Amino acid sequence: MRTAIFYHAGCPVCLGAEQMLADGIDRSKYRVEVVHLGEHADRVAEAEAAGVKSVPALVLNDQVFHINFGASIDALK
Amino acid sequence: MRTAIFYHAGCPVCLGAEQMLADGIDRSKYRVEVVHLGEHADRVAEAEAAGVKSVPALVLNDQVFHINFGASIDALK
Repeated sequence: MRTAIFYHAGCPVCLGAEQMLADGIDRSKYRVEVVHLGEHADRVAEAEAAGVKSVPALVLNDQVFHINFGASIDALK
Repeated sequence: MRTAIFYHAGCPVCLGAEQMLADGIDRSKYRVEVVHLGEHADRVAEAEAAGVKSVPALVLNDQVFHINFGASIDALK
């Protein structure tokens, strides 16, 4: 079983979309884990070691995908 | 059946993302379509209308996820 790890930090703007993407992963192929780095700071080093530069990020089989789904700076003003 | 459309432009970043992410989508939930915008420029307008700003991007149920950063959609026009 391959592993998909979703790292995030509880960004309220992003949370629903993260859930949708994590739910879209084929669970017959991947064991899916969602890690809130704000609540589990002890796992930041692990995420960094996997190559995570920002959150949200999806690590599929040790390959990192940094995901930015449109939280533009204008939307945050 | 929900729809997942993966837009890309053949760049190395795109192909790596396609291979891992498109294959990881749960095909019992999503009909997956892969669109190479470099070869199908007639679909750029459709991608833009869906909110795609750069490729590779994954549109899951009308929600856009921009993955890493390969190319601006403006470069594909």
